Amino acid sequence: MAPGEPHAIPFHPKGEIPHFEEEREGWGGYIEWERYPEKKKQAEEILKSYDFPDPPEFQLLPLPDTNPILTGERFKQYHQATGLGHLPDISWQYVLKEKSPDMIHVLQFPYNGEPPRDRLVENEITPNPDFFVRNHGGIPEIDPAKYYLDIGGLVNDPRRLTLADLQNESLFPRQSNVVSLQCSGTRRIEQIHEYPGDGDELINAPWGEGAIGTARWTGVSLKKVIKHCGGLKDGAMHIEFFGADTYFKKGKVYNYVVSVPWRKVKANEVLLAWEMNGEPLPKIHGFPLRAVVFGYIGARSCKWLYEIRALKEPSEAPVQRKEYLYYTPQIGKQNAMYSNGFSIQDMPVSSAIISPRDMQHIIHDGKVKLKGWAYSGGGHWPIRVEVSGDGGSIWYEVPWDKMSTKYYHAWRLWEIDLPVDAEGWLEFLVRTWDNALNTQPTFVRSAWNWDLHVTSSCHRIKVYSINRSRPTTAARLRVLEEKGLPIVPITKPLPFDLETDEQYEAAMKVQKGREPLE
Amino acid sequence: MAPGEPHAIPFHPKGEIPHFEEEREGWGGYIEWERYPEKKKQAEEILKSYDFPDPPEFQLLPLPDTNPILTGERFKQYHQATGLGHLPDISWQYVLKEKSPDMIHVLQFPYNGEPPRDRLVENEITPNPDFFVRNHGGIPEIDPAKYYLDIGGLVNDPRRLTLADLQNESLFPRQSNVVSLQCSGTRRIEQIHEYPGDGDELINAPWGEGAIGTARWTGVSLKKVIKHCGGLKDGAMHIEFFGADTYFKKGKVYNYVVSVPWRKVKANEVLLAWEMNGEPLPKIHGFPLRAVVFGYIGARSCKWLYEIRALKEPSEAPVQRKEYLYYTPQIGKQNAMYSNGFSIQDMPVSSAIISPRDMQHIIHDGKVKLKGWAYSGGGHWPIRVEVSGDGGSIWYEVPWDKMSTKYYHAWRLWEIDLPVDAEGWLEFLVRTWDNALNTQPTFVRSAWNWDLHVTSSCHRIKVYSINRSRPTTAARLRVLEEKGLPIVPITKPLPFDLETDEQYEAAMKVQKGREPLE
Repeated sequence: MAPGEPHAIPFHPKGEIPHFEEEREGWGGYIEWERYPEKKKQAEEILKSYDFPDPPEFQLLPLPDTNPILTGERFKQYHQATGLGHLPDISWQYVLKEKSPDMIHVLQFPYNGEPPRDRLVENEITPNPDFFVRNHGGIPEIDPAKYYLDIGGLVNDPRRLTLADLQNESLFPRQSNVVSLQCSGTRRIEQIHEYPGDGDELINAPWGEGAIGTARWTGVSLKKVIKHCGGLKDGAMHIEFFGADTYFKKGKVYNYVVSVPWRKVKANEVLLAWEMNGEPLPKIHGFPLRAVVFGYIGARSCKWLYEIRALKEPSEAPVQRKEYLYYTPQIGKQNAMYSNGFSIQDMPVSSAIISPRDMQHIIHDGKVKLKGWAYSGGGHWPIRVEVSGDGGSIWYEVPWDKMSTKYYHAWRLWEIDLPVDAEGWLEFLVRTWDNALNTQPTFVRSAWNWDLHVTSSCHRIKVYSINRSRPTTAARLRVLEEKGLPIVPITKPLPFDLETDEQYEAAMKVQKGREPLE
Repeated sequence: MAPGEPHAIPFHPKGEIPHFEEEREGWGGYIEWERYPEKKKQAEEILKSYDFPDPPEFQLLPLPDTNPILTGERFKQYHQATGLGHLPDISWQYVLKEKSPDMIHVLQFPYNGEPPRDRLVENEITPNPDFFVRNHGGIPEIDPAKYYLDIGGLVNDPRRLTLADLQNESLFPRQSNVVSLQCSGTRRIEQIHEYPGDGDELINAPWGEGAIGTARWTGVSLKKVIKHCGGLKDGAMHIEFFGADTYFKKGKVYNYVVSVPWRKVKANEVLLAWEMNGEPLPKIHGFPLRAVVFGYIGARSCKWLYEIRALKEPSEAPVQRKEYLYYTPQIGKQNAMYSNGFSIQDMPVSSAIISPRDMQHIIHDGKVKLKGWAYSGGGHWPIRVEVSGDGGSIWYEVPWDKMSTKYYHAWRLWEIDLPVDAEGWLEFLVRTWDNALNTQPTFVRSAWNWDLHVTSSCHRIKVYSINRSRPTTAARLRVLEEKGLPIVPITKPLPFDLETDEQYEAAMKVQKGREPLE
């Protein structure tokens, strides 16, 4: 589907559509906003002249079962209004070129997509085409030969470095790490289903369990680059990243800008990466250079990085200051202020059951195989995974030899054959303990927040269990097989009687009828 | 909407459509099946020759937001195939004529409908047009002058009684009772949402909280009528009712037939009623005569009653033997047998919050008014109602002066001003205690059953609380009012910043920034 085709709301431009020049030759789609307050103002005026239609109220209604699930009309219209209407199309072409054809397109533009569930836990290292994407704007097309990175702000020697400079091993030692990136929207759909929110962000994509992936990233430690720039000036405590994508928020236009504390950089936990699993970064993942911030929310791992600045305080840009905040459950549209949400940086311990799927029916012989992922951010690692087949009362430990490699900054995949005797609707849960003995809240409700970020409560799925090792069930399954009838859907009544009149009467005789005696 | 119009699946009759004669002059739409095994066989053969499309899988998909919610195509097609295709249209005309225009049409045919929620708890006695309807077939049109009732089976003097005979007060003393009738499907939607089922019945209508109503019924006690027939023969223990509607099940055709134990009749708890709230029974409610079985599942209160038989055992008819059974949660399509479900007769204690509605947002000043109904069957009565504003931890008693009249066989309406301080998504619950100290299971899950009958768990709704008595919330509401913006939907982001940069920076100063100290 071409972007904006079937779901497109017709857009009627007002007056002359402006032409905002690309900033640099060889940097397609990169409009510089942050350096030009006048230009920002101009774009703001344009946006103000429109009355954009509301985004779809997907949180209060059933989600469409289309792919893309949401098309992002409003973001497309922002782009059209400001003369950037070609960017959604270019971005979509990279989705088709660089991502697996069966990605779940959660939001078409800006592109948000996750891999099909069955492939998510196939490999401890996620293949690039399957790696989730959470973009905030269009994809810039940057010629690596024309690429350079400016490092400024409170550094002693501000510098401009080309890609060749960064890759020059005599200047910078190369660093390579296996790191999971996770969007704080992972598993948001569980919060949406239970208690809609949406918060201050437009538009909070309805992610499933797949907004997480693991890659081996190669590049240079940002610490070395800062050192190469003479180190920090006194009082510099934060490092700000500028991405070449264009971001809209509340009628204003920005480049994508975030920051991380210097302390994180100093620990060699921030990489400037040009390689993802041994290949050049895909365009959709930040080519030619991105930040990779270990153990942090994915939002800090800025793509299409074109500038780095050292600051005294965290970035004042809206993505840092006004988004990715974690509110207490009594905060919402009626009372929220940015200062009462805390900033999501380190990601907590979390996990998900990927197989079986929620609402699946399972015919088994007393054991059900469960598979999933487990993760903890901030340099912690999953040290034990436990699953429950009874809604969270009895827990079974995943055997240690059924958990994938330990990394300081990556997930672990796991599987277990869970003993299951009971039939009917069961609730399977997973919870993970990390090496600091953190574990997960029990219910979605325990950790609901208005912005629907970080759904780290125990992942709970419903499965319908059919235990063939029980004689009555085996007999019914045989009857169904003989008649060529599937047992699914379990909600479809059987076309034949459940027992013969003779069997019923015999049972009634033993029960001494339906009524008690006098 | 005409029945079967918008959703209609085209029906292609095979060969000649049969003509099954109406049984009696002046009894429109009454086809007698039970006395003619050959005719039943013939109809069965006809049905067997069709491959009817599956009913809609509404349990696994979001329900349409249409009214009628479900149209009942498959039942209509059964009727068309057996030459009774005119019955759905006739029935629908009575819906339009006798019921409130804003009924929620849960199933168009056979007609299942419940009143709009706001009116459900307006009156302790439900007005006839608002009384829920759960029909199993088409509505017969019976001329009261031509009406008679046969009483036979194990009675000493089988008799035929006209309506005039029954209404002759020198033969039978008149009896009048306030009695609630409840469909065992009440609140089924909660089970559907959590764990689909459907069981053995086609089609299990997705009822809300309105499949209950209370009327003053007038007629004669069945006990007196049986006495008039010389009493029961030795060994007679059950009384069977025959209704003039046509019922289809698993490819076979029947009249609607059920039974109740003699013991129930003997207690003067079974009325043969011709009056509902001082008016002749509406056609849709069983005119000219129906059974009203106090405290039992509505299914036993047979409409369009044309025959009564005394039996040794409960009725062998499918509605009695094979439906309205209550299974344990591990029973389902894979292993169910009629003999392992118990028969639903007496209804348990249950209740519902009718106001506010699930998912509603409520702006309040620290108290929220809750209204609802409470009921217990089998001659028990609601003696205490309790509500919780915190998901079931703290309970508040409804003041006794806020509960409607006590009857042995009817619901009580209640209301309470619940203190609510918290904001955000809250869970409100109600539970009722009856005079035998029975109360309700806590969760839908506690009482899930495959047929989705009797959802008697604590009714739990989610509301979004906005407490205007809190200064921060009052301030935000004022801002919204000034800007002419509604606070709903709460999922729609605000178009303005949540606080000024100055406020944010002042707060950060007090918090000493986002990062801890060394």
